[in-house]
Amino acid sequence: MNFNAGPATLPLPALERARNELLDFAGSGMSVMEHSHRGKEYEAVHDEALRLLRDLLAVPKDHEILFLQGGASMQFAEVPMNFLGSGGSADYVVTGAWGEKAHEEAAAWAAMTGARVRIAASTKESKYTRVATPAEADLDGKAAYVHWTSNETIHGVQYADVPRFGSAPQVCDMSSDFLWRKIDVAPFSMIYGGAQKNIGPSGVTVVIARREFIDRGRRDLPSILQYRAHAEAKSLLNTPPTFGIYLVRNVLEWIRDLGGLDVIERRNREKAAALYAAIDADAGFYRAPVERGSRSVMNVVFRLPNEALEKQFLGESKKQGMVGLKGHRSVGGIRVSLYNAVELEWVEELARFMKDFAKRNG
Amino acid sequence: MNFNAGPATLPLPALERARNELLDFAGSGMSVMEHSHRGKEYEAVHDEALRLLRDLLAVPKDHEILFLQGGASMQFAEVPMNFLGSGGSADYVVTGAWGEKAHEEAAAWAAMTGARVRIAASTKESKYTRVATPAEADLDGKAAYVHWTSNETIHGVQYADVPRFGSAPQVCDMSSDFLWRKIDVAPFSMIYGGAQKNIGPSGVTVVIARREFIDRGRRDLPSILQYRAHAEAKSLLNTPPTFGIYLVRNVLEWIRDLGGLDVIERRNREKAAALYAAIDADAGFYRAPVERGSRSVMNVVFRLPNEALEKQFLGESKKQGMVGLKGHRSVGGIRVSLYNAVELEWVEELARFMKDFAKRNG
Repeated sequence: MNFNAGPATLPLPALERARNELLDFAGSGMSVMEHSHRGKEYEAVHDEALRLLRDLLAVPKDHEILFLQGGASMQFAEVPMNFLGSGGSADYVVTGAWGEKAHEEAAAWAAMTGARVRIAASTKESKYTRVATPAEADLDGKAAYVHWTSNETIHGVQYADVPRFGSAPQVCDMSSDFLWRKIDVAPFSMIYGGAQKNIGPSGVTVVIARREFIDRGRRDLPSILQYRAHAEAKSLLNTPPTFGIYLVRNVLEWIRDLGGLDVIERRNREKAAALYAAIDADAGFYRAPVERGSRSVMNVVFRLPNEALEKQFLGESKKQGMVGLKGHRSVGGIRVSLYNAVELEWVEELARFMKDFAKRNG
Repeated sequence: MNFNAGPATLPLPALERARNELLDFAGSGMSVMEHSHRGKEYEAVHDEALRLLRDLLAVPKDHEILFLQGGASMQFAEVPMNFLGSGGSADYVVTGAWGEKAHEEAAAWAAMTGARVRIAASTKESKYTRVATPAEADLDGKAAYVHWTSNETIHGVQYADVPRFGSAPQVCDMSSDFLWRKIDVAPFSMIYGGAQKNIGPSGVTVVIARREFIDRGRRDLPSILQYRAHAEAKSLLNTPPTFGIYLVRNVLEWIRDLGGLDVIERRNREKAAALYAAIDADAGFYRAPVERGSRSVMNVVFRLPNEALEKQFLGESKKQGMVGLKGHRSVGGIRVSLYNAVELEWVEELARFMKDFAKRNG
């Protein structure tokens, strides 16, 4: 029972397929990772991954899907490098540690290039226990883009509905919020996320961006940093992480075979409901710091009465076969990540354990 | 018989180990790619990969080893971004397509920042059929660094002995030249390369750099682009490509178990000798464009009398189970990559095929 925050648990069928064909892919006598990225065997995988993602999320025709490297952290830098030129300004909505980091990286680039980065809204004063609404944001209508984080993995804060922050291009870090439900991609100029939460292993970054937005990016950057160059090369500008993309393909196939994102969303909501119910049932013992309307379906955080009990909770749950429950070192407490491949049965077992633990120690 | 130029063939024991423990790593009941990059199970792999690399190559204590993402292409940009400030200048020695590309990316950055990039030497006039010697290079003693490419994968041109270009810090792209023999790392300020040639799958970049050189890098870049930040975080600044690094560990283990780099080098020299002997034995039919002193041990390129015969050669060799022999689309002809995991028997079979093919078609 793996509740890791990322890299995270992957669907067994996706891993089994990888194991079964690890030494012999498509009857070639070679591993998929030994194939040329320009060969037809790998190309078929690459194209299928792109196609499955486009189908599952109903990505509009005027949006490109890119497979890049470097994780969301590299996107924190590449977004301002592409879209924040001298004299320009960008807005950041900060609702947790990752939004802070994205803002910091953009601010570094802005300082280098004579641009400006504004914090349009921040919920730091609440210790990141809620999302920020568009109504409370001080938005710059002329911003090159507005950047926000739809789910904060560390603080367990998530937008229940997809907001829109003003009229500037919307750029969203969806790393831990990607592909667990249907969303309307059309309003976004860019969505990005590391694969290692819901759709694959670490080492693959997914970017979905409107072609017209990509075209606005500066043209004098080294080409490897330009989204334009990756889009033109169909994510084969340089050697892609072929095995990682192959695994993403396997995971996407699993989602499709399960019935698509509607089924996945229902599963995820059931898991989150079961877990929050367990927390709320022993509300005197377990404390969920996040406001109800901002509770994350992906990363559930809670505290126990004291750190000694938290330590005991982690130790006992581990003995029962549950791993990945320790909160991020920056905030402590307990964190349960409920990504797509986490099974409802695991959550139910965790809920039973929580009930028993509270009874014994409450 | 996989002669791919990268991603390339990997040692069977490294792949078998990956297959055998794909669903259950170290008795954890989870795949290594499902483990947290901050957990002790993955950390042991990460540390072992770093330690094996340091041991095999005798990397000096004052050099850091980093595992990054984005391939050599990302390094083409990151090197000038870190070390080429306003008013500064860097020298590039260009002996093939990859050196050209590295220079282009650095020139883009230099134009953005008011720095300068010089071509200290180029063998373009020879159509990249030889390396450039330090004696013929027009070096700037005050250069921030001098960048060269020790093996040009596309043109099959390699430095037989490790040169030194003047007194500026030496930065070397060794992507297709890395870890097939012992070299003295001490004179280098930086060595980098994609893993997908000699040491692993695509998606992992290895950087070896002197700590003092890393410290010279600019401090105002977004942190993800600073070598300093990765070095301080022991290559765990953000989520690394954990499965890729795990495979690198498996490959390094294979090299160690085989007897280390001396054994690997002997194997590689035998393979190259056998192949060049086959070319030279039918010198009227096969033509190796590269000057003898610059012939690559890793990527052997040659031509046949005409393109129709080259096409026939590729078709017939493929039927005999040999793949990856097509030259890069930019230059045509035949290319045979002889990376560490290529077996001598495959090369001997190719040599027999070549002899027979020349006899039938010469």
